[in-house]
Amino acid sequence: MSALSNFRPLVVFTVDTPNGQKVTNFTEELKRAYGSKTGFNVKYRKIDMSVNEHKADWYLKINPNGRIPAITDPNRGDFNVFETAAILLYLEQHYDPDHLFSWPSTDPKADNYRSEVMQWMFFVHGGIGPMQGQANHFARAAPEKIPYAINRYKAETQRLYSVLDARLKDRDYLVGEGRGKFSLADMNGWTWCYRGPLVVPEEEIPQSVKAWIKRCWDRPASKIGMGATNNGKLGDWAKGAWSKESGLAPEE
Amino acid sequence: MSALSNFRPLVVFTVDTPNGQKVTNFTEELKRAYGSKTGFNVKYRKIDMSVNEHKADWYLKINPNGRIPAITDPNRGDFNVFETAAILLYLEQHYDPDHLFSWPSTDPKADNYRSEVMQWMFFVHGGIGPMQGQANHFARAAPEKIPYAINRYKAETQRLYSVLDARLKDRDYLVGEGRGKFSLADMNGWTWCYRGPLVVPEEEIPQSVKAWIKRCWDRPASKIGMGATNNGKLGDWAKGAWSKESGLAPEE
Repeated sequence: MSALSNFRPLVVFTVDTPNGQKVTNFTEELKRAYGSKTGFNVKYRKIDMSVNEHKADWYLKINPNGRIPAITDPNRGDFNVFETAAILLYLEQHYDPDHLFSWPSTDPKADNYRSEVMQWMFFVHGGIGPMQGQANHFARAAPEKIPYAINRYKAETQRLYSVLDARLKDRDYLVGEGRGKFSLADMNGWTWCYRGPLVVPEEEIPQSVKAWIKRCWDRPASKIGMGATNNGKLGDWAKGAWSKESGLAPEE
Repeated sequence: MSALSNFRPLVVFTVDTPNGQKVTNFTEELKRAYGSKTGFNVKYRKIDMSVNEHKADWYLKINPNGRIPAITDPNRGDFNVFETAAILLYLEQHYDPDHLFSWPSTDPKADNYRSEVMQWMFFVHGGIGPMQGQANHFARAAPEKIPYAINRYKAETQRLYSVLDARLKDRDYLVGEGRGKFSLADMNGWTWCYRGPLVVPEEEIPQSVKAWIKRCWDRPASKIGMGATNNGKLGDWAKGAWSKESGLAPEE
């Protein structure tokens, strides 16, 4: 890691979607934890999807998949990282020297906890992300209403939330001793669930999952990270998504 | 890692699907590479989905998501791992001491290569796996033919293959110096592409992707791993999936 005076801001190419927010929430956590120690800092570069900027040649050199987010790290030879979860792991490895969001290898249980982090990260990355994404597409974006597809993906999203529910029933966070510790696993998961009410009625989202979302949402870094490319404000989709009583609605 | 005489076979709960095959191909690689040195060995425990064994209480303690594959490691306190890619990473960490399928930390480029492995693993885990899975569902399994959904997922699978194509045009494997080295990244990807012709006509699969599949398919370990729970034989779905000329059809 570079010394304080030499730190060059990482460039985060992003949009405030559930995937983009995972990364900007983490960079905001790292700024708070390390900014005054190491100089850790980032620049947010919003990608304008309305003009297909994510498919531009220059961007495909950074992210060959043409999706957001991606990062470029000028402290490590302009190394590029694509895929949200790979970005979180990269940031943790290089910019969380105290392992605040993971476990140091000196911890005798570190290997197991780190494996559990991977398990829950892949669970979200291959399950909740793509399936809730499809649920949202068919419920809200598709040009035709197709009941079979709407029901298929809503049901799968609910099933996946029930898996989280079983894990979180007697825990605060997905991984760690006792009730757990806020880690990459949570960072990688809760932003999708924050948009849960767009496809699953709020009252059908398990209580344990809602309490977990609230723990993550209540972190000061989240309040900035969730709207990183929009002056800290959530998009219009968030208006009315959660009831006032949930404690999850953004302040007006 | 346990000494030769003390090694207790890992239990792999699986079925010969593209996800199950990733793990059994890797365990077959590890048996060949390390069996006589460390005693590395596995037991394959086929999960009978026809009677919902993957949703049984005993199995949900091993894999809370109720999917295959999963493993239990008696050498490490019966530690359980679910999510295919997390299993590959676990096996590499604990049972590939020579880093044959990754890079040792003594390699000055190891950090970057390992990050690139993660990037391509997540790319497949969140992209090709779920999207090709949906393409297969709507093309072959869904009770109604829904053109919008069939086209949506076939097109997305083709787009994802084009991303692989761009990466593999001048490489043999996804990650590593020069033309690359066979690693976890390839292990995690090619089994899905091997089923490509079930949703994308063989002639529309990019040449570079076919050549990559063939490199992986031609490995002796793959010939056993692909049919690990079926005496080394692929299921009926493989008959006629690939043309004889492709070099990818299983022997009769």
